[in-house]
Amino acid sequence: MTNTKAEYNAFLAECPSRQLLDRISNKWAVLILCALGGDTSAAPQAMRYSELARLLVGVSQKMLTQTLRALERDGLLTRTVTPTVPVTVTYELTALGLSLHHLTRGLRQWAQHHMPEVLTNREKHDARAS
Amino acid sequence: MTNTKAEYNAFLAECPSRQLLDRISNKWAVLILCALGGDTSAAPQAMRYSELARLLVGVSQKMLTQTLRALERDGLLTRTVTPTVPVTVTYELTALGLSLHHLTRGLRQWAQHHMPEVLTNREKHDARAS
Repeated sequence: MTNTKAEYNAFLAECPSRQLLDRISNKWAVLILCALGGDTSAAPQAMRYSELARLLVGVSQKMLTQTLRALERDGLLTRTVTPTVPVTVTYELTALGLSLHHLTRGLRQWAQHHMPEVLTNREKHDARAS
Repeated sequence: MTNTKAEYNAFLAECPSRQLLDRISNKWAVLILCALGGDTSAAPQAMRYSELARLLVGVSQKMLTQTLRALERDGLLTRTVTPTVPVTVTYELTALGLSLHHLTRGLRQWAQHHMPEVLTNREKHDARAS
């Protein structure tokens, strides 16, 4: 394989990696990867649709379904249907999804960890502006 | 400082870290951090508005201005106005912005590096679906 970093450049609008970056830098995609990657458990885990919907507070059914489908199509997760009554649908990260998870976990942890500093910065900024 | 990870949880809709995660997981914010963080140069660099607009191909003036303002308010970058004729406006990452840059650079590199694999996954997926 040739050097893919030279071939693809997300700074360019027409590059496919721009659209892929758009897909993976999206709060719902990030939170789905965090959930399946094991941020709330000891290790990566398969989760049912209903479990994801409950964990990602505020996500609409349409947005969750769309994001899961896109991540499945890109090969970041697998969707498994088990013929129980009613059927059980579970989602699990692939190796590719797991390779992205350490970055999405980092984003979530960064946001949570630096929240107090950002809140202080906003107050200072708004005080200067007024 | 107490454990901020326990205090903030981006899985919760009402948590401020959810909104912060939304702001930083956004392709324009990611690409601005990549640009100022030095992905296209040897080291972090100050850049003029016009340079950013040129590098981030396809970004609208409105979106670029909005994203820069939000990142400035959060304390991720500084905006400096130099009274030249016409005035020069430059943007530069703060230490906080630099601490996020290694994650946004990782996202961009991940997208560029895994693009061939994702394209193959999409083809396979669409072939199965049809």
